[in-house]
Amino acid sequence: MTPPVTTRATAPQILDRCRALVRPALTQAVRRLHPWPAEMAAFSLGWSEVGGRPVPDPGTGSHGKGVRQALTVLGAEAAGGSGADAVAGAVAVELIHTFSLLHDDIMDGDETRRQRPSVWKAYGTGPAVLAGDALFALAVETLADSRNVHSGAAVRHLAGTLSDLVRGQAEDLLFEARPWTGPEAVSPGEYRTMAGHKTGALLGCAAGLGAVLAGAPAATADVLTRAGRHLGVAFQAVDDLLGIWGDPRVTGKPVHSDLRRGKKTYPVLAAVSARGPAARELVALLASDGSLDDADARRAAALVEEAGGRRAALAEAHRHLDRARGCLESVPLEPAAVGDLLTLVPFLVDRRL
Amino acid sequence: MTPPVTTRATAPQILDRCRALVRPALTQAVRRLHPWPAEMAAFSLGWSEVGGRPVPDPGTGSHGKGVRQALTVLGAEAAGGSGADAVAGAVAVELIHTFSLLHDDIMDGDETRRQRPSVWKAYGTGPAVLAGDALFALAVETLADSRNVHSGAAVRHLAGTLSDLVRGQAEDLLFEARPWTGPEAVSPGEYRTMAGHKTGALLGCAAGLGAVLAGAPAATADVLTRAGRHLGVAFQAVDDLLGIWGDPRVTGKPVHSDLRRGKKTYPVLAAVSARGPAARELVALLASDGSLDDADARRAAALVEEAGGRRAALAEAHRHLDRARGCLESVPLEPAAVGDLLTLVPFLVDRRL
Repeated sequence: MTPPVTTRATAPQILDRCRALVRPALTQAVRRLHPWPAEMAAFSLGWSEVGGRPVPDPGTGSHGKGVRQALTVLGAEAAGGSGADAVAGAVAVELIHTFSLLHDDIMDGDETRRQRPSVWKAYGTGPAVLAGDALFALAVETLADSRNVHSGAAVRHLAGTLSDLVRGQAEDLLFEARPWTGPEAVSPGEYRTMAGHKTGALLGCAAGLGAVLAGAPAATADVLTRAGRHLGVAFQAVDDLLGIWGDPRVTGKPVHSDLRRGKKTYPVLAAVSARGPAARELVALLASDGSLDDADARRAAALVEEAGGRRAALAEAHRHLDRARGCLESVPLEPAAVGDLLTLVPFLVDRRL
Repeated sequence: MTPPVTTRATAPQILDRCRALVRPALTQAVRRLHPWPAEMAAFSLGWSEVGGRPVPDPGTGSHGKGVRQALTVLGAEAAGGSGADAVAGAVAVELIHTFSLLHDDIMDGDETRRQRPSVWKAYGTGPAVLAGDALFALAVETLADSRNVHSGAAVRHLAGTLSDLVRGQAEDLLFEARPWTGPEAVSPGEYRTMAGHKTGALLGCAAGLGAVLAGAPAATADVLTRAGRHLGVAFQAVDDLLGIWGDPRVTGKPVHSDLRRGKKTYPVLAAVSARGPAARELVALLASDGSLDDADARRAAALVEEAGGRRAALAEAHRHLDRARGCLESVPLEPAAVGDLLTLVPFLVDRRL
């Protein structure tokens, strides 16, 4: 007798399924905005061009894969609920994510995002501040007004995350002014804390929010929150690797862009803190005035690798992915949803590397 | 026999009492922020100078009178609760108010606020965006995490207000690009809708929030919300008058500042829509390129007055104050708190005029 063949969904299929579930409510939420911030939001979400012309097939572009909304849907399913329970939460986390990209691009002076101008570059700084505020308000409103009986607990769950997110951005911005060496240098540990706030908090919130909206016990929501947070820190480490070695056609940013700008990312901080000749040459390069030219950036990337920064960041990512897996195995959860979550885990690290 | 003498508190005494009740929780909330946004928040609240040096006696400065927090405290008392019930709500509305001043100053390019540099001018645009976001997040968190059993309903009450606030700012910004005459001109009615969102929504939310936190029936909270909204629209009309005729030593802005910048405010829109020779001359002045010089601004102010704009804005303010009073008399409320609210009403219009 042949055992029944169970085909497990691939990561892109899982993300597609969750996006399809969330998209109608997300579209409806954005339509509640004033037309002006709504246009900027649609541009930012990859649904339209500057000026409002719809993008023909927004689902397949280089836009956000919808990892956060998927975590919310899968969090609800893992806690024994249905994905439908989690839709308002998934909408809220996507809106908050979009808000934070919009405002972070202003603060960081980033002129491009996903191979298009950033919102402040396309629409102006003032309007981009407005659009971010509108998305932030809409996220809170969507969750608070949802008919889910657990919406009060869900808003509480989201509220702390919002503060963590802003704290992470403050920490990241302040890193810029600090030196590469000496007692004021940013340690890899400080960087990890920042990444936990800036990226981990929202991915953790996303997964936990699904459980909260499904009415799961606090312990279940906590475990999913922790799993999501580890995924977020891993995600950030991979983003940092992409900021140095990512393919510009895929990342939408110039090659070595983070190095040219002297951004304090995990691989660079790990390399600098390694000491040795490569680290010393790297510090000398990074400490020079102005941004690096092509040759210097290439040399810096080679030195980060030689000093072990690339390896350290990859190890950091895998360490947090292992912890995320550990969390998912620490309480009884729905096996099918856990299977989907575990399918997403390697996908988050392998993407575009 | 002599009847007992009841001395009614004055408006400044009422505002002082409410500020004293709210201040410890507001201070504690701001301390929860990352030190950097906390410093910008303290500066914005008038507690410290740029750089963080504390202001000797922040209570008596030219800073916010705390009208919104007072409405929340009095809203709770009017609904039969105690002011203490309302403190988390009062903190949230003050934080939201501060957030909106901070971000609006960026969008409007306003370089001064209350006789000091605006936050973006003192700290930079990016940091000011961050500080606003931090205050927004803190407001939601403070209310969601409060131990008040009605905090869930209170967050719902606040959430819709946040969207109205952003909508009002969008409407106001878009007015700038529109002509003074013709079918595309901004009508006084459109202006009233904008003021309802931009200023009315938060004052309405403030008063209603007090009732919600005191566990009042929905009808009571609704009436207080409507009363606060009318107060807000009246408040905005008075602000518009101050933007033209206010004493620069009190407003902290140059005389005729709104006219110089061609801002579309109620008195100007009412004057322009009045037709007649004064209105025509005013339109010709306002439609000229560039900002007005001293003589032109003085002439424009005289023309606004001649065309009835000043009178119309004052009438608008009084109309809404009457409606606010009508709301307060339409349901049974605690007489002492209603007395305090009615004491504040004329104070809002007479301030600095």
